[in-house]
Amino acid sequence: MAEYELQCFAQSGNAYKVALMLELSQASWTPVWVDFFNGATRDPEFRSEENEMGEIPVLRHGETRLTQSAVILEYLSQQLGTFGWENEEERREILRWLFWDNHKLTSYVATLRYMRAMVKTGETDVTRFFEGRAIAALKVLDQRLADTDFLVGNRPTIADLSVCGYLFWPEEIGVDFGPYSNVNAWLERIKALPHWVAPYDLMPGHPLPTPA
Amino acid sequence: MAEYELQCFAQSGNAYKVALMLELSQASWTPVWVDFFNGATRDPEFRSEENEMGEIPVLRHGETRLTQSAVILEYLSQQLGTFGWENEEERREILRWLFWDNHKLTSYVATLRYMRAMVKTGETDVTRFFEGRAIAALKVLDQRLADTDFLVGNRPTIADLSVCGYLFWPEEIGVDFGPYSNVNAWLERIKALPHWVAPYDLMPGHPLPTPA
Repeated sequence: MAEYELQCFAQSGNAYKVALMLELSQASWTPVWVDFFNGATRDPEFRSEENEMGEIPVLRHGETRLTQSAVILEYLSQQLGTFGWENEEERREILRWLFWDNHKLTSYVATLRYMRAMVKTGETDVTRFFEGRAIAALKVLDQRLADTDFLVGNRPTIADLSVCGYLFWPEEIGVDFGPYSNVNAWLERIKALPHWVAPYDLMPGHPLPTPA
Repeated sequence: MAEYELQCFAQSGNAYKVALMLELSQASWTPVWVDFFNGATRDPEFRSEENEMGEIPVLRHGETRLTQSAVILEYLSQQLGTFGWENEEERREILRWLFWDNHKLTSYVATLRYMRAMVKTGETDVTRFFEGRAIAALKVLDQRLADTDFLVGNRPTIADLSVCGYLFWPEEIGVDFGPYSNVNAWLERIKALPHWVAPYDLMPGHPLPTPA
């Protein structure tokens, strides 16, 4: 039996952040597919038993149940001894990028991709608004990576594994990453890490069934 | 000279999260007003010297400079010995609500308020989209508070101080909080804490000057 059980689905970048951490660390883990697109996370039983926030990922490790990708990443870095910090200042700097990712990058990029690639709303005032916010965040990230190979401490940490979570899908996001050459070079460095696997190959549920 | 220097402005709920922490803890602190509405946080010097993320708040404590409200709250809880956790499980649970706030509550509520009360865009597809997300978050919060006085450990922690940051402005957000009676009761409990001060009375820059 695997040590870690990750509730996830292939299209979730937030779940990918954790799956990538587990895979890069060569942990003993197994994915458990959650039927997000048919409302599994809105189910009252899911909310009472798994996550009142109604979100994926959920990690189970023995009796411990954890949610919020960043909290799980922090936990795993300590459990597995990988991709963590070396001192308190680094720990805070990693945490700072984890919050920035959740608030300013993923919150816009993930929603934009969801509208364009999953709901297929077409171009609307809402997609244009989210695209503006997504591009502002990509600029901050590109600037940060101008003279460092990774976000914190010049080596890969959970900050990188979180921030990259949605960025291997530029076509689905529908934003040209061309101008962000530092971001692109950094994504290549992450892809070159031993045991890297792309999101759709790492978690179950891809491709989505074609509607009848 | 005050021990803590907080770069802030009265309209920032993210700055308020930290200002409220400092005030409730009766710390030695002083606010430093930042001219956000005239672009101070977009200034290249601000980005290079204060915060590359281009955001308020920034806290200075001696030689230490910190950004991201949640990282600052965690730091202050340890420095001041207030509103923190009692064990590792509580620490993770507080962190979980801090991430949820940044990703799912503040990200939508703050932007909705900004469009309605500051930019005054009027009702658009974008405000309607953000209102839907804000209400979904308020429902999660209301459910959480159904049988506990505060978010974690049944006593006020930095999780509460973060999550409440934008919620004392329901009129500016333009959402009727009436249906969320647990949220309202919890906000009253926070207002009843010794030394509580409303955002516009705690930080400089209110009201905004009327355009000429």
